[in-house]
Amino acid sequence: MRYLTAGESHGKQLTTIIEGIPAHLQLLAEDINHSLIRRQGGYGRGRRMKIEKDLIEITSGVRHGSTLGSPISLVLKNDDFKHWTDIMGAEPLQDDTEIRRQVTKPRPGHADLNGALKYNHRDMRNILERSSARETAARVAAGSVAKQLLREIGIEVLGFVKQIYQVKANDQPKLTMQEKQEISHQSALHVIDPSVEEDMKAAIDQAKQDGDSIGGICEVHVEGVPVGLGSHVHFDRKLDGKIAGSVMSINAFKGVEFGEGFEVANKRGSDIHDEISYSEQNGYQRETNRLGGFEGGMTTGMPIVVKGVMKPIPTLYKPLNSVDIDTKETFKASIERSDSCAVPAAAVVMEHVVAWEVANAILDQFSADFMDQLKKSVAEYRERTRLF
Amino acid sequence: MRYLTAGESHGKQLTTIIEGIPAHLQLLAEDINHSLIRRQGGYGRGRRMKIEKDLIEITSGVRHGSTLGSPISLVLKNDDFKHWTDIMGAEPLQDDTEIRRQVTKPRPGHADLNGALKYNHRDMRNILERSSARETAARVAAGSVAKQLLREIGIEVLGFVKQIYQVKANDQPKLTMQEKQEISHQSALHVIDPSVEEDMKAAIDQAKQDGDSIGGICEVHVEGVPVGLGSHVHFDRKLDGKIAGSVMSINAFKGVEFGEGFEVANKRGSDIHDEISYSEQNGYQRETNRLGGFEGGMTTGMPIVVKGVMKPIPTLYKPLNSVDIDTKETFKASIERSDSCAVPAAAVVMEHVVAWEVANAILDQFSADFMDQLKKSVAEYRERTRLF
Amino acid sequence: MRYLTAGESHGKQLTTIIEGIPAHLQLLAEDINHSLIRRQGGYGRGRRMKIEKDLIEITSGVRHGSTLGSPISLVLKNDDFKHWTDIMGAEPLQDDTEIRRQVTKPRPGHADLNGALKYNHRDMRNILERSSARETAARVAAGSVAKQLLREIGIEVLGFVKQIYQVKANDQPKLTMQEKQEISHQSALHVIDPSVEEDMKAAIDQAKQDGDSIGGICEVHVEGVPVGLGSHVHFDRKLDGKIAGSVMSINAFKGVEFGEGFEVANKRGSDIHDEISYSEQNGYQRETNRLGGFEGGMTTGMPIVVKGVMKPIPTLYKPLNSVDIDTKETFKASIERSDSCAVPAAAVVMEHVVAWEVANAILDQFSADFMDQLKKSVAEYRERTRLF
Amino acid sequence: MRYLTAGESHGKQLTTIIEGIPAHLQLLAEDINHSLIRRQGGYGRGRRMKIEKDLIEITSGVRHGSTLGSPISLVLKNDDFKHWTDIMGAEPLQDDTEIRRQVTKPRPGHADLNGALKYNHRDMRNILERSSARETAARVAAGSVAKQLLREIGIEVLGFVKQIYQVKANDQPKLTMQEKQEISHQSALHVIDPSVEEDMKAAIDQAKQDGDSIGGICEVHVEGVPVGLGSHVHFDRKLDGKIAGSVMSINAFKGVEFGEGFEVANKRGSDIHDEISYSEQNGYQRETNRLGGFEGGMTTGMPIVVKGVMKPIPTLYKPLNSVDIDTKETFKASIERSDSCAVPAAAVVMEHVVAWEVANAILDQFSADFMDQLKKSVAEYRERTRLF
Repeated sequence: MRYLTAGESHGKQLTTIIEGIPAHLQLLAEDINHSLIRRQGGYGRGRRMKIEKDLIEITSGVRHGSTLGSPISLVLKNDDFKHWTDIMGAEPLQDDTEIRRQVTKPRPGHADLNGALKYNHRDMRNILERSSARETAARVAAGSVAKQLLREIGIEVLGFVKQIYQVKANDQPKLTMQEKQEISHQSALHVIDPSVEEDMKAAIDQAKQDGDSIGGICEVHVEGVPVGLGSHVHFDRKLDGKIAGSVMSINAFKGVEFGEGFEVANKRGSDIHDEISYSEQNGYQRETNRLGGFEGGMTTGMPIVVKGVMKPIPTLYKPLNSVDIDTKETFKASIERSDSCAVPAAAVVMEHVVAWEVANAILDQFSADFMDQLKKSVAEYRERTRLF
Repeated sequence: MRYLTAGESHGKQLTTIIEGIPAHLQLLAEDINHSLIRRQGGYGRGRRMKIEKDLIEITSGVRHGSTLGSPISLVLKNDDFKHWTDIMGAEPLQDDTEIRRQVTKPRPGHADLNGALKYNHRDMRNILERSSARETAARVAAGSVAKQLLREIGIEVLGFVKQIYQVKANDQPKLTMQEKQEISHQSALHVIDPSVEEDMKAAIDQAKQDGDSIGGICEVHVEGVPVGLGSHVHFDRKLDGKIAGSVMSINAFKGVEFGEGFEVANKRGSDIHDEISYSEQNGYQRETNRLGGFEGGMTTGMPIVVKGVMKPIPTLYKPLNSVDIDTKETFKASIERSDSCAVPAAAVVMEHVVAWEVANAILDQFSADFMDQLKKSVAEYRERTRLF
Repeated sequence: MRYLTAGESHGKQLTTIIEGIPAHLQLLAEDINHSLIRRQGGYGRGRRMKIEKDLIEITSGVRHGSTLGSPISLVLKNDDFKHWTDIMGAEPLQDDTEIRRQVTKPRPGHADLNGALKYNHRDMRNILERSSARETAARVAAGSVAKQLLREIGIEVLGFVKQIYQVKANDQPKLTMQEKQEISHQSALHVIDPSVEEDMKAAIDQAKQDGDSIGGICEVHVEGVPVGLGSHVHFDRKLDGKIAGSVMSINAFKGVEFGEGFEVANKRGSDIHDEISYSEQNGYQRETNRLGGFEGGMTTGMPIVVKGVMKPIPTLYKPLNSVDIDTKETFKASIERSDSCAVPAAAVVMEHVVAWEVANAILDQFSADFMDQLKKSVAEYRERTRLF
Repeated sequence: MRYLTAGESHGKQLTTIIEGIPAHLQLLAEDINHSLIRRQGGYGRGRRMKIEKDLIEITSGVRHGSTLGSPISLVLKNDDFKHWTDIMGAEPLQDDTEIRRQVTKPRPGHADLNGALKYNHRDMRNILERSSARETAARVAAGSVAKQLLREIGIEVLGFVKQIYQVKANDQPKLTMQEKQEISHQSALHVIDPSVEEDMKAAIDQAKQDGDSIGGICEVHVEGVPVGLGSHVHFDRKLDGKIAGSVMSINAFKGVEFGEGFEVANKRGSDIHDEISYSEQNGYQRETNRLGGFEGGMTTGMPIVVKGVMKPIPTLYKPLNSVDIDTKETFKASIERSDSCAVPAAAVVMEHVVAWEVANAILDQFSADFMDQLKKSVAEYRERTRLF
């Protein structure tokens, strides 16, 4: 299973091609749109979110609501492109046309300068149009297909907000996955602990008022995972490694951890591992899940629990020093427009990125040219490991 | 650039094949051994470390001290294999031979049970021999070749211990890379802040005395990195993502972060980004390095600063509940032997894992069939970006 | 460099995403269209070719006629889709809708039956829509971008028809690349030897009149190739192997050979190798090119000469026995519509498939984030090897 | 499933690491040795073959005759290395040591010159030691593991000699796979048509007497293949393409074809496709196998029939013109030693290379962490497709 994305932030469209999805998966545009809409929502988003009314178009790989086994292509049109045609169009300009909206002032915290130096672009719009978090919509689209596949074999994935700035949500160990999904889907902050919503909103409002931005921590739970996804036999087959790599590749993420994560440094071995028990009905079980669902690079059968930290978005109302690459003069980094906090959207992105990796691990391990075969293989595996 | 490792912990040997190293890199067995010896050292290691006198044998790809461009194979013989021949040998046993040292008691925190369920092994020795951290010696060997390559183009990599249990070392921002290397190489705890050594030793001693184990945090610095390694153009080309995935795949690692990492959640945008300045002599520069050397999945030219957290090693003197897979009876998980703290060794492993990813990014970006060409390409790139 | 294609033959569109093209490559839609139009032309094509007025739309990765370095997405709309919406649409059908144009009769020589068995599709339209040679338009689009890149560094690629049915064109060793391009571009049969055109047309006409189909042999020349593309160091880095794999993956291709190909079996060693000479001006040279430009999996600097054989297209007016998968009754395999000979189109496809592999080898070997760097690296390499 | 090989022709050893073989495959050194011995046999081999008494050592991944699921490493020691230690050793030489056996005279038809120019080696021993066909022993070792796996699911692979120089063996359509294996294994020429053995020997003797070399054509049959291996959904998943790429990457191979191969150009569509029939007992069947077991990049369930052509080996007693890279003077290319015909060995190599690709396709399609699961998945698939 693999996918490529293409598209610039103000370009004509985002395009995603997904290769390797089994045949006969029920897939509707509205399933994907549901994910895209969740990504766009969230308290504290800026004006851009209102412009981007993302509605996916499935342009191949699906027929009559069901996948064919052939590559799935997904298109997200940019309704605003008509205003950007001469700025971002693929066609050459007339010789005497002045290029509008050129960017020679790199914003700290963005790819602008690094990318310009690497690709030798003197107009940094050529970088920022692609490095924009707009691309995560394409990753969400791909991940929503993965989520549909996982759902068919009893695996559910949810991303929610664990912390915004210094406001931390409480764990909700008693909630079922369905309850967590319902609560977070209704929350403007994508939390599963509504008691912190007001404080989070206040923190966002304060940041916006101060012309500043704030980040936070996202958490993803994956429930219903069979034991043994990933493998210990070679380092690059460890599933926790793959998930970590994918999460860190989300725009603005600076850290990732499983289970108790960095806290394990402060604990002793006797307090951090998950004891093993057994019941005839359920087979081997864990009493706790401190390790976040992984031992030896493989799933334990407990929920995958992974956190990622997002830095405050770098487009700031309160500007930082930077240098114009033409004049070499110092300036205060200005911005086109901005959200003051994008953590709720990031939680949705992280959910979909993790879903992709888990689905990929499933298809690595189980027969998968069509869905009935996949469901049968997974079910037999669950039964064999239960009886082991 | 790619590599595969093979070998079981008590098997005949560890083998590594590295494919894609340019020709004409000076490479001596002693360079690799230097890394292997550092991995084996460190306060708090168990008896096994004294048995494993790792000395690498270069069995291909190097002639007269210089790489050929062809695959490099590295062998670490297991001197103790003579005692394990009948237990771990490749040859079939006589029908009536009883297999010694079978393992039916999975240890919590290890791959034992997950792997047995996945691969349908009823003797979990078939899992633990490969999931053992012994394999990291092969990764260190591969990474030491990467380090030699990086050194030739002015890039130095150092892994050191940042925290053991609750004892945190202080940052040492004023030390040069060479000073940090010298201090950590002489430290039994692989720290660059000798003031905490006594406290760390005491923590290790106490854990050992209590029959417990402790983990900690490792940190890796990469200095001399050109701006623009990695790329923003596709999510799977972001170098911070690749490094994160690799670090998380190290045995017992549960988290990874760049720069201020999870701390960024607690800060505001105006306090977390690195302002850009310019001087005619050095080109574009950063005044700070809060983001750990990455923006937009690309290097900024500042040092890469990455931390990883290692859980306390799960082989415990103080046992945890588990279940025998034959009898299904609960038992107290015992161990063969153990270190009480492996964080100093883990810092060396992490150093080499990160070095591999950086070297790989270098070879992705620059022409590299032989070293002089690589050096020329990197030098010209440094000059072009300085003058940009 | 990598690319994915998506799209069914009668679906909404074909989509291609190309990742890894350097920045600053001049790229116009008309360059790609030129290739697509050549693929659609050729004597003996059926009605479908007139329907498919392929005009590419560049939907990302190119701005103002120049590549950005970000993924390039290319779309080929299917103008006829309005007639196929209910048959091929992504949306679910109403429960009582009868699906039109279902296919239960597999055609020998097509993917129909194999694919249906593998993917468990009882309507084989779900296979044939993707296995159709229509997909090669997407590969031509990708290859045309590769050709633009190669042209910038002095490498030209041409595919032409060497044989149709039993009519063989003569080699034209005295023609320059430019002459071969001009002649073949003007030839309805895509030959560089116009003397055989009439005989080829007659063979095609006769086959059509008989309700039969014919195949033939395509040949691709790549000129201006530097010595040393590919590598001997690992089997999967040999460029001739990669080209062979790609050519064989073209629909209906059954064989591939370099230089004298299968003829070498009939010759002795003294008659088959290419002697080496030297001149101060040109460096090392070959007097002949019997091996088709490859020794040891690497280019010799002589033109790459590769042939591929295409079977007669299996959609036949003269039907073959097959079995209906619903009734299990034998029937005479009928067809929707057909060309009697697709070899001229296949020569264009093969040209672009080979171009992709050569461009990929170029970017593997030379620095390539933007075109000026690529041009400089290749030029310096040419000079170094000339003076070696 | 993936593997890397390492090792120079006169170096210490050849090493292969295979990653991705399921657990519980019975694997003995003698199975691999059987393949290696067949590769070394064959009429017309030179002195070197007698020196190389290849006996494999399994150094990991196998315990008590059964695979663990972890990477398998295989070592072929070079018994003659003691005579080459100072020439090929990894250790640096003393400053005043003269390097023996330097090569400055490139042999036409070898990688020598292309590789030297690419890697900037002035001693071409640094190229020829790796480009030597000696490396194919490592590929045979890997392929022999694949063959063991295939045998367990009822798939047999045989490579034999179809033509040497102008002596063509007849097809033997009535022989069973077992008969073909027995006959070819006993034939000094690895043919399944013993009637041509004398003529082939005479051709080899004559070539040797004339100081010349001859090539020929190898053929591989794969029987017991399920329908639907490979896939039509994306060009790089077509199994015939992968096999073609792998076969072409064998040293000295210049062409590859399936079924009637290049002959299809001379035939009409009505004579080249394989009609489909059906019986309740066997399901869908083909009456003929002109396409060599492939339609649409997928297997048809008929035997895979693939041919490859090997050029006469370029190490010639009758020398060709070449140029000394130091003096730039023309010389007659001499050789160290040579076989006059290596086609019988090449047939064994090709058998193992094809076996690898087929096994890889099997593991892509079926669940495969351990052999019982693989066998069950394949058996169920065979049954489902029979009843389709």
